[in-house]
Amino acid sequence: MLNYLDPDPLNLVFAALADPTRRTIVERLTRGATSVSELAQPLSMSLPAVVQHLQVLESSGLIRSKKVGRVRTCEIEPTVLKEAERWINERRMIWQSRLDRLETYLAENPDTTK
Amino acid sequence: MLNYLDPDPLNLVFAALADPTRRTIVERLTRGATSVSELAQPLSMSLPAVVQHLQVLESSGLIRSKKVGRVRTCEIEPTVLKEAERWINERRMIWQSRLDRLETYLAENPDTTK
Repeated sequence: MLNYLDPDPLNLVFAALADPTRRTIVERLTRGATSVSELAQPLSMSLPAVVQHLQVLESSGLIRSKKVGRVRTCEIEPTVLKEAERWINERRMIWQSRLDRLETYLAENPDTTK
Repeated sequence: MLNYLDPDPLNLVFAALADPTRRTIVERLTRGATSVSELAQPLSMSLPAVVQHLQVLESSGLIRSKKVGRVRTCEIEPTVLKEAERWINERRMIWQSRLDRLETYLAENPDTTK
């Protein structure tokens, strides 16, 4: 269950990305703004189910939508995608630099492993 | 609710990262392998609650653990972190290249915006 009052936006972003339909929608939107009915067309589910997924994505900040006349169009919000990427990347870099230091140490002290 | 039989590992990885305590644990483990009791110490929750978070992380493949004597030690599994980063990065790059093409087009066709 998502908590829309969550103080840490990454909670909502990662929860939104944890669903394959929502990742498919994000994937489609990175190729350009798309109407809700176009987004729903290839998905094997009802329009209300698609709208519910879009609401989760919009609450997380990953996408935004606007209605012109009777057509609602969605587009990606790349800054939020960047934030999620940055969090993972920073963690991975810390781990990687630790591993590099360990490898340097073992190369300089070959006797350690004997 | 996590489904541990989920065929797409990214579902479990992003769901695991959607919780601030689990992100704190991942953050700690990128700095080196740590025992469960050391991981639990700075967290304001019971040991069983921490163990439950560790089980979610381990099921997602983000961490692995081993027990030596009475001490269970956890460490990061960087390949899974890399997969999640790659998914986001690829989406962001597709979006970015689309934006770059649009900017080039507008620069070459300045009358379009008038």
